Amino acid sequence: MENKHRFCVIMCGGIGSRFWPYSRSAKPKQFIDFFGTGRSLLQMSYDRILPLVPKENVIIVTNEQYAPLVKEQLPELNDNQILLEPARRNTAPCIAWAAYHINAIDPQASMIVTPSDHLITREREFEKAIEAGFDFVESHDALLTLGIKPSRPETGYGYIQVGNPESENILKVKTFTEKPDLQLAKVFFESGEFFWNSGIFLWSVESILNALHSYAPDLTNTFAKGIDTFGTPAEREFIDREFPGCVNISIDYAVMERAANVYVECVNFGWNDLGTWSALYDNSPKNAEANVTQNCRVLAYESKGNMFAVSGDKLVVVKGLNDYIIADAGDVLLVCPKADEQHIKQYVNDVKITYGDKFL
Amino acid sequence: MENKHRFCVIMCGGIGSRFWPYSRSAKPKQFIDFFGTGRSLLQMSYDRILPLVPKENVIIVTNEQYAPLVKEQLPELNDNQILLEPARRNTAPCIAWAAYHINAIDPQASMIVTPSDHLITREREFEKAIEAGFDFVESHDALLTLGIKPSRPETGYGYIQVGNPESENILKVKTFTEKPDLQLAKVFFESGEFFWNSGIFLWSVESILNALHSYAPDLTNTFAKGIDTFGTPAEREFIDREFPGCVNISIDYAVMERAANVYVECVNFGWNDLGTWSALYDNSPKNAEANVTQNCRVLAYESKGNMFAVSGDKLVVVKGLNDYIIADAGDVLLVCPKADEQHIKQYVNDVKITYGDKFL
Repeated sequence: MENKHRFCVIMCGGIGSRFWPYSRSAKPKQFIDFFGTGRSLLQMSYDRILPLVPKENVIIVTNEQYAPLVKEQLPELNDNQILLEPARRNTAPCIAWAAYHINAIDPQASMIVTPSDHLITREREFEKAIEAGFDFVESHDALLTLGIKPSRPETGYGYIQVGNPESENILKVKTFTEKPDLQLAKVFFESGEFFWNSGIFLWSVESILNALHSYAPDLTNTFAKGIDTFGTPAEREFIDREFPGCVNISIDYAVMERAANVYVECVNFGWNDLGTWSALYDNSPKNAEANVTQNCRVLAYESKGNMFAVSGDKLVVVKGLNDYIIADAGDVLLVCPKADEQHIKQYVNDVKITYGDKFL
Repeated sequence: MENKHRFCVIMCGGIGSRFWPYSRSAKPKQFIDFFGTGRSLLQMSYDRILPLVPKENVIIVTNEQYAPLVKEQLPELNDNQILLEPARRNTAPCIAWAAYHINAIDPQASMIVTPSDHLITREREFEKAIEAGFDFVESHDALLTLGIKPSRPETGYGYIQVGNPESENILKVKTFTEKPDLQLAKVFFESGEFFWNSGIFLWSVESILNALHSYAPDLTNTFAKGIDTFGTPAEREFIDREFPGCVNISIDYAVMERAANVYVECVNFGWNDLGTWSALYDNSPKNAEANVTQNCRVLAYESKGNMFAVSGDKLVVVKGLNDYIIADAGDVLLVCPKADEQHIKQYVNDVKITYGDKFL
């Protein structure tokens, strides 16, 4: 098989607290059938990558808490394809482990790293883009990130400013930016030079290990100690001992914003990070009153622009609510203006202080 | 026992649709432990009357649909104390049947007729008032209704205007009024001449049967056909055959507004008909933000004056909601301004049209 050196790492350990209470600590959003299609976001991510890499080259990295959910949702995977993190340590340690793990299996490997909880609507475009990305990183010592062509002046994403083109759709990265305010986002949007930072990466195992060695030597030192265990039964014990000591840092901050060989592939395949209720609202079909209903029955009177996310077979009747999130998860109900969704993390904190873990 | 001729009829067949979805067709509000005390409104009504009439003289009239609920909640009653209506026909047919039934047991009986879903907070005052009422109707050919001393210019109740006093706290009724608008309600409230119409009645069986004969001859004709069956095993069959043919009419309209011997006992025992969410809100303890929580846990941010009625162990988190009803009944969630509660019946109708009986 031509693509036998290609691997996929699906990062699947997040807790999705911005979608609380629909996304819960015990079953975060990547495990939820968000669109009522019969497949969870994780399953959709897996389905999407299968035409591109051999099934046995798909690696799921998740928190050990979610091992049963992963096995239930992807029963076709072998246990050695599921890497269980004993602690939450952001994306850099996760990716470093996966890279060392794959390197032990196939030092010539290239890999895509992708979140498990994004929406991608145009799968054919996705396949073409990922094929091109693999081709590029297999012929260049490059760290490639996917940049999404913006469709609006979004303030909820980081942006990548592009520099000189390297090949069709692949350009040198000039800068990574923080989330902009609306004024700046409009400038970015209109310039044509800025793309959304998707958090999807491609590189050869050799390139990422070299970059980690240069820019995250602590991580390299930690994983180098276990170099003989990767791909063996001793790997789990090594990780359980050493992984919790890893620094909590993102791959963007640890490597991508520092390395010199960083490129962006500019793509346009109907992407949304589903990072917030508003993101989901914006990307969902709306009825005549601009209400979005998520797996539920709604009778709405004088109510517009609401996001209804209610589990199960529930009926919701509302009067006089505009631009709210109404999220019901059985034992928790949240009613809050869409504009206040950035406070949901604070509510979750208050819930934890007041009630412990019961409702998280 | 001195009070052996005294009977109590508790009317318990309503469906409480103004409290939907907390009150459901399958379990209306009289069967709900509304205040989290461990006793339903029906049980509270029963407890309240027990010091006043012998236990075996308590008669429950309900729809046959609710027989299991009544037996579950009042297991000390015998089956012959539970009259099961085969159809819903308002209060006049219900009271007529109960009067004929009691007449067959004890023609010298006096009786109190009371709804099962009201709140009465001052039970000692209630007992004194009912004792006095029984004494009056046992010595006068009188139809006695209880008038509640108003505590505010309420527009949700009918009023009774009093005439000449007959004895302490008992006066001739001058007029019954419809629910007034606010301006008129203020006039009523300030006059001291108007009392709330409670829907609690006392009379001798003889007086009510005479009044029915004069003012509701159709009902009398119907029940007279079964005169030999009351108190016998044949009663049920007679009722199942004849009751559905009774006119659907209230006792107020059929008798109280027409008869000449109608009196009102003016009382003040902490009464609320719990007819609406607002009534419940007004009569419930409130927290510092004027929110009322009903059997649930609430975290409220910038939210005041709300009525939370959520079944079970649920957590509710709200932001930026003022003066709303938030009622969750497992499979139904209602969010609606308190000021719009008169529309709840319309919502229930729309639900029925859209989904059938599933959510009623």
